[in-house]
Amino acid sequence: MEGTSPRIRPRRDLARRRVQIEGVVPEVDAGRFAVKRVVGDELRVEADVFADGHDLIAVRLLHRPGAEGSWEEVAMHPLGNDRWAGSFVLPRVGEHRYTITAWVDPFLTWVRDLSKWIEAGEDVSLELLEGALLVAGARDRATAEVSGRLVEWEDRLRRWAADPDLPEGPLPDELTHLMSLAPDRRFETRYGRELRVRVDRELARFGAWYEFFPRSAVGEGDRHGTFADAREMLTYVREMGFDVVYLPPIHPIGSTRRKGPNNRTISESGDPGSPWAIGASEGGHTAVHPALGTLADFRTFREAAEAQALDVALDVAFQCSPDHPWVKDHPEWFRHRADGSIRHAENPPKKYEDIFPIDFETEDWEALWVALRDVFTFWMDEGVRIFRVDNPHTKALPFWEWLIGELKRRDPGVILLSEAFTRPRMMYRLAKLGFSQSYTYFAWRNTREELESYMNELTRTEVREYFRPNFWPNTPDILTEYLQTGGRPAFMVRLVLAATLSSSYGIYGPPFELMEASPREPGSEEYLHSEKYEVRSWDLARPDSLRPFIAQVNRIRRENAALQRTGPIRFHPSDNERIIAYSKTDPEEGGVILTVVNLDPHHKQSGWVDLESEALDLSVGKPSSGGLHSVEDLLAGGHYMWEPGRNFVRLDPSVSPAHIFRVSGPGRAESDFEYF
Amino acid sequence: MEGTSPRIRPRRDLARRRVQIEGVVPEVDAGRFAVKRVVGDELRVEADVFADGHDLIAVRLLHRPGAEGSWEEVAMHPLGNDRWAGSFVLPRVGEHRYTITAWVDPFLTWVRDLSKWIEAGEDVSLELLEGALLVAGARDRATAEVSGRLVEWEDRLRRWAADPDLPEGPLPDELTHLMSLAPDRRFETRYGRELRVRVDRELARFGAWYEFFPRSAVGEGDRHGTFADAREMLTYVREMGFDVVYLPPIHPIGSTRRKGPNNRTISESGDPGSPWAIGASEGGHTAVHPALGTLADFRTFREAAEAQALDVALDVAFQCSPDHPWVKDHPEWFRHRADGSIRHAENPPKKYEDIFPIDFETEDWEALWVALRDVFTFWMDEGVRIFRVDNPHTKALPFWEWLIGELKRRDPGVILLSEAFTRPRMMYRLAKLGFSQSYTYFAWRNTREELESYMNELTRTEVREYFRPNFWPNTPDILTEYLQTGGRPAFMVRLVLAATLSSSYGIYGPPFELMEASPREPGSEEYLHSEKYEVRSWDLARPDSLRPFIAQVNRIRRENAALQRTGPIRFHPSDNERIIAYSKTDPEEGGVILTVVNLDPHHKQSGWVDLESEALDLSVGKPSSGGLHSVEDLLAGGHYMWEPGRNFVRLDPSVSPAHIFRVSGPGRAESDFEYF
Repeated sequence: MEGTSPRIRPRRDLARRRVQIEGVVPEVDAGRFAVKRVVGDELRVEADVFADGHDLIAVRLLHRPGAEGSWEEVAMHPLGNDRWAGSFVLPRVGEHRYTITAWVDPFLTWVRDLSKWIEAGEDVSLELLEGALLVAGARDRATAEVSGRLVEWEDRLRRWAADPDLPEGPLPDELTHLMSLAPDRRFETRYGRELRVRVDRELARFGAWYEFFPRSAVGEGDRHGTFADAREMLTYVREMGFDVVYLPPIHPIGSTRRKGPNNRTISESGDPGSPWAIGASEGGHTAVHPALGTLADFRTFREAAEAQALDVALDVAFQCSPDHPWVKDHPEWFRHRADGSIRHAENPPKKYEDIFPIDFETEDWEALWVALRDVFTFWMDEGVRIFRVDNPHTKALPFWEWLIGELKRRDPGVILLSEAFTRPRMMYRLAKLGFSQSYTYFAWRNTREELESYMNELTRTEVREYFRPNFWPNTPDILTEYLQTGGRPAFMVRLVLAATLSSSYGIYGPPFELMEASPREPGSEEYLHSEKYEVRSWDLARPDSLRPFIAQVNRIRRENAALQRTGPIRFHPSDNERIIAYSKTDPEEGGVILTVVNLDPHHKQSGWVDLESEALDLSVGKPSSGGLHSVEDLLAGGHYMWEPGRNFVRLDPSVSPAHIFRVSGPGRAESDFEYF
Repeated sequence: MEGTSPRIRPRRDLARRRVQIEGVVPEVDAGRFAVKRVVGDELRVEADVFADGHDLIAVRLLHRPGAEGSWEEVAMHPLGNDRWAGSFVLPRVGEHRYTITAWVDPFLTWVRDLSKWIEAGEDVSLELLEGALLVAGARDRATAEVSGRLVEWEDRLRRWAADPDLPEGPLPDELTHLMSLAPDRRFETRYGRELRVRVDRELARFGAWYEFFPRSAVGEGDRHGTFADAREMLTYVREMGFDVVYLPPIHPIGSTRRKGPNNRTISESGDPGSPWAIGASEGGHTAVHPALGTLADFRTFREAAEAQALDVALDVAFQCSPDHPWVKDHPEWFRHRADGSIRHAENPPKKYEDIFPIDFETEDWEALWVALRDVFTFWMDEGVRIFRVDNPHTKALPFWEWLIGELKRRDPGVILLSEAFTRPRMMYRLAKLGFSQSYTYFAWRNTREELESYMNELTRTEVREYFRPNFWPNTPDILTEYLQTGGRPAFMVRLVLAATLSSSYGIYGPPFELMEASPREPGSEEYLHSEKYEVRSWDLARPDSLRPFIAQVNRIRRENAALQRTGPIRFHPSDNERIIAYSKTDPEEGGVILTVVNLDPHHKQSGWVDLESEALDLSVGKPSSGGLHSVEDLLAGGHYMWEPGRNFVRLDPSVSPAHIFRVSGPGRAESDFEYF
């Protein structure tokens, strides 16, 4: 029998590795993609770790800065049922790595068993001798100092083994500590994958964005605005409490097949064209539209913004007007038709004749990729660290993954916002490939059920590990029906929702704060007289502007760390489905913000909101003894005492459609005091 | 600027692969482990597959027999929202492989766009010329015959392009078909992992097991039974409808520190010892206990079993009595104490002094692994194809994975049942590592909620891909409190549950059918006078034996394919929590079995069971129009007409605690007929 079965060798290096590691969280697509965090975050890692039999194991979380750094180790602790957890703080922006290692630990097992034998009244002299052998074995692995102390311990164990009168109680912690410095790791199991966490600066997680067209920054008349005009708007933007000013493309605009007002296919001589029809004789993606000024003017604008603590975000739209220099210099970067002409953008039966899409299947893809990357690096050299990327889902995905890697190597603090209004799998894939943030479906989530279910998807599934939402109630392309029909309260509702549901949000102003609500035509989500095709002028000082309200909401966000993270979020039941209520907790200080919004912009709504104290998660302070919560409405002012159970709210959209409450821990009752 | 950024090359082979593939199901731990199926099963594979932009993609499921076979391709079809599905039938026992490939298909895209342009009334002459170019490009990739027909098509498209009068309607399917034979796959994306499916014979999925101790097969008196006696029991076992007879270890039993009756630490001269204390001077794991007979006698027994269509399963318990030959020949395979003695099994404060565990950390592990493997191959050479493995969770896991690979290479039809009553992660990991089936927590799941939630875990989570439960109401180690206290109805309830919830189940008889219910002591799950330590005699002809009932349940299983799979299973609500109701559907023929059990062995229970026709999943025949179901009780007999809604049941445990209904499609109402 033995002759018939050849001696087949298993993989020698794995044979005696008895520990198994699986179910690691966070891990995206088997480590194919990095998880995302910001600097200073604590990364908590969990895994199922176990070995055969009853022996105890030691589990360590390993982490290092980048692929070349040296590993640091953190002990993981058991949560029960073979689940282990550990964490470490991410000290700097850039890529960090982590994995897990574990081993069966004979010494820990011996300590546990020894105390059980002693408890059971057994003779442990042999066990003590075996302990002495374990200690002796550790000496070679230990530093000289530790080794010296282990020699003493070995002696002591041998003396105890020979002495029927044992010391009482458990072994001193000192021995366990010394042995943990020199464990027997010959058969340790290293988790099969080294996982990556991309650490961004805080602005990738928390920030308020304001988009405006610099050419409309004049304020009166229809003169084409300049960077100098735009600079004048910065104080206005800063006073509203924004962190980022985002400009649509600032490059020369093509004249061939230029679009007229309201997207007319025929333009007249004065029409400025769409900033997204990029490229003219003056240059392409690295040039500045002459009507806006020079590159030096842009630099002055950016410096002025930074002086006001505003980051400048530029728009990168990889498409070319027929007049873009690349069309002449690199015709092979575009698709050609059977008649030799370049194929314009189309989505049958729609045609976009002012735009040529780029052909990512070109034979010259390498030069193309480098040129596209160098658009980013050009503006990074100009001090820009945030980019809003136009329609990334219509460009080849391998390109984005490569590009973002390149840019992050150059400046790990660079932030890219993906404008991918597309199907969910693609939207999420772009985030996995490296986009720091993404536009979302928020603009079209209006009901309580829609909002809750979307937020649960974003904050309670694996999506939260790699996808950072940036909530926009409007954009130059999106004037939702809700805003068109809901009047001033609709704008207030959508602002409060965006700013309190998501830690990153933005508005396209001035149309937002001035409550522009007219669509190009009924049923359209396009703005009438959209700035995409026209220079507009805005009366920023209008007394009905939402500017003070926006400033107030942004101030609340800034002063309350609970609103500086998108998740976790808890929704609180209400008996009126038009009323949505949710709370967030600052994980460090424990402050709680409870937001209650009337989603109906037309009518007063009232109802009962159910507030369990556990649900409010007042993690600082002592557990509630059923006392009252002190809540302060940070929007309308006023203090209330709320009970842990149901509380009545009534929101009149014509006054204020929302409360943003700061909740203080439950008030003490007499019985809480020690002298009671 | 360009000077400062070095030209970094992306991976050339990936750059233009625009399709992304993710979310593949089934896939266990990123392909680390195989999924399990049985021969003849259809393997359905789903994945998220998508590309940038609006181009159409083609998606193919690839599969092959083993790592060296050649790939076959099956088209996958879109389910919506970027989800694709495809399937193939597993033709033979052994390992099969599968993966996915996909590409952006310019021709499919062209066909779609062409019809849209035509519909919009656009001039498509250029499009037709471009189609001609695509067809010309395909010629080089096509067979000579296809190529010839493509030449004709290219001509036709060119003629149409020149002719303003186009043919009406869509392009003939012939061109699409021809082009699908020669697609442009230069930039196809292959999923990054080749996945494995382990295909077993059907007995791995569906079978009823009967365990008995051959030494107790005498029937009267306390003579030590032999294989010849055991052979006499085979007809009895077969007539009850079992598929597998499983014998506890049949090897010589050690005499050193042999256990006496009821696990006493001191034995007397006539005590037979535990069959799990393996090894004596007569030999170890490849020897036969002389009191049972010879190897030739075993062979005769096995052949007799096979003649009755019974597979023989042997027990493999890797532990040694102090008298096992390995202890003398390979002392290095065991752990030694500080005094040089071999360490017996222990779990402080418990000691198992009649057993030495094997040390999988031994330096001589390679020889050990081979010896352990050769225990299996010895019995496989003896014609045994099923093994019940004792406590695999206390042996090193890398060993099992290697071992099962070795055995499957020798006989892909070998079946290993894991006896791992341990924590969930370990139980599931053993299944992932290759065990064909596993013991479960079923014995301790008694309430409706416990049973439903456990079945949902087994059939609705990823567990179903690799873990096959084998439900045992009792074992020689487990006499549950429910059986101890519930009398005859308890045994009937647990039998029906095991046999209808899980497609594999087993009983330890004769104590099961004879309803042995006395524990060794109060609170213990051990049998009083356990066969583990004593030769017992059983009066198999006792008139109250459950034998006819068991035979009936096994016949129902055999005649109804719905019961030959563990999942899917649907639970039907009932207003009495003591009543559990569930149905299964034969995926091929559509037959439905509805089981209703009174879980209370002491009292009659009645209540309403809610039977929605959708929930019954009568997938054959036309959708229900609200007619009646004809149900036949296969246990007690009797036909009933049930309504799609709530139906009343009343189960008296003293008569029969369960119904097993065969459900026929809803009876037709007049309105179903065409002439109505």
